[in-house]
Amino acid sequence: MGHQPLSNSPGFDADFRQHFRDLLVWRRDVRRFRTDKLPDGLLERLLDLACLAPSVGLSQPWRFVRVDDPVRRESVRAEFEHCNAEALAAQSLERAGLYASLKLAGLREAPCHLAVFVDPDPAQGAGLGRRTMPETLAYSAVAAIQTLWLAARAEGIGLGWVSILRPAVMNGLLDVPADWRLVGYLCIGYPAEPDDVPELERAHWEHRRPLSEVLLER
Amino acid sequence: MGHQPLSNSPGFDADFRQHFRDLLVWRRDVRRFRTDKLPDGLLERLLDLACLAPSVGLSQPWRFVRVDDPVRRESVRAEFEHCNAEALAAQSLERAGLYASLKLAGLREAPCHLAVFVDPDPAQGAGLGRRTMPETLAYSAVAAIQTLWLAARAEGIGLGWVSILRPAVMNGLLDVPADWRLVGYLCIGYPAEPDDVPELERAHWEHRRPLSEVLLER
Repeated sequence: MGHQPLSNSPGFDADFRQHFRDLLVWRRDVRRFRTDKLPDGLLERLLDLACLAPSVGLSQPWRFVRVDDPVRRESVRAEFEHCNAEALAAQSLERAGLYASLKLAGLREAPCHLAVFVDPDPAQGAGLGRRTMPETLAYSAVAAIQTLWLAARAEGIGLGWVSILRPAVMNGLLDVPADWRLVGYLCIGYPAEPDDVPELERAHWEHRRPLSEVLLER
Repeated sequence: MGHQPLSNSPGFDADFRQHFRDLLVWRRDVRRFRTDKLPDGLLERLLDLACLAPSVGLSQPWRFVRVDDPVRRESVRAEFEHCNAEALAAQSLERAGLYASLKLAGLREAPCHLAVFVDPDPAQGAGLGRRTMPETLAYSAVAAIQTLWLAARAEGIGLGWVSILRPAVMNGLLDVPADWRLVGYLCIGYPAEPDDVPELERAHWEHRRPLSEVLLER
């Protein structure tokens, strides 16, 4: 095929790996944004990188919807408020006060809103690899989101994943095909401040556990 | 809280971003491995990085199972062969020959096998963020896998995601709790050779499409 990848295969040195580790450590699920707009074209450049994510059968089933219309944004905020009120009501008595104090979305401040859907039956990929695990299509979209998240952080840009929404409602609010399924609704913008500790940990909601608790040997 | 993150917040410069882009470009779904073992402790270091991935409500619902036992590995290979034969039979006449020629797993050569499951109802996180979208638990495990994948590539190590398996069968083969759900079975090791083009593209199974085909505005 005349394809000669070895000639220019990059190496990654210890310095890069240390910075990559920093990137992982300082990536946050951001809920507090500055309102400054992103530079023109930046979102598209980040999405080009996200599209380098793996996808089952090379199906690239991710579908991105940039939401700029103020009326649609307001309807998404209202949907979040509805679902969040129900989630608060479902919390235990001990947890409800703390839950109510959490800021769980930056929908009002974030300059950029991006909904990510998955196409549940794309022609691309010809079905390869997803016969026994069709959920790998949605998983491909998640891999793209995590890639976008890291690429954004490398530009000093934060991302917050909003999942307190009803997927079936979102298709109508955003006028996308009925068979697409929401994977995540992302708020994107400059974070109010960087941090290396998750906001839920700082708020004493939850803390991270060591690897040893989740690694088995067989 | 005495927490002062701003004082040592790292910046990421254009040089890092270029290398990060290279990392994304040269990450492959590897099916052709050398059989050299990984250095002791390397998998654990990579998994520590994977655990920096986002998780819904800070639930960290990923469960990692390192599979070393030759009998279990053989049973996983047999399960793959069974499912792959069914997938081949389901291919169109035009596609079947090409499908049969693809190498879709490196189960025999890869020195390290890692199954990733999701706990569908973890206590950690107290249910936050997953009431309307419980699939965000599995998505958290996927974010960890994509993080692991990139961290491995930065060490020159390849990863291949095997999805041609029946999740319900895998719990028994690997003796894990019945309610865990397989997210992916990963082959990990040194790639036979690096490449910047997906193997499915080189094999003319599928090719990647431009962002413009999957980006909508609303």
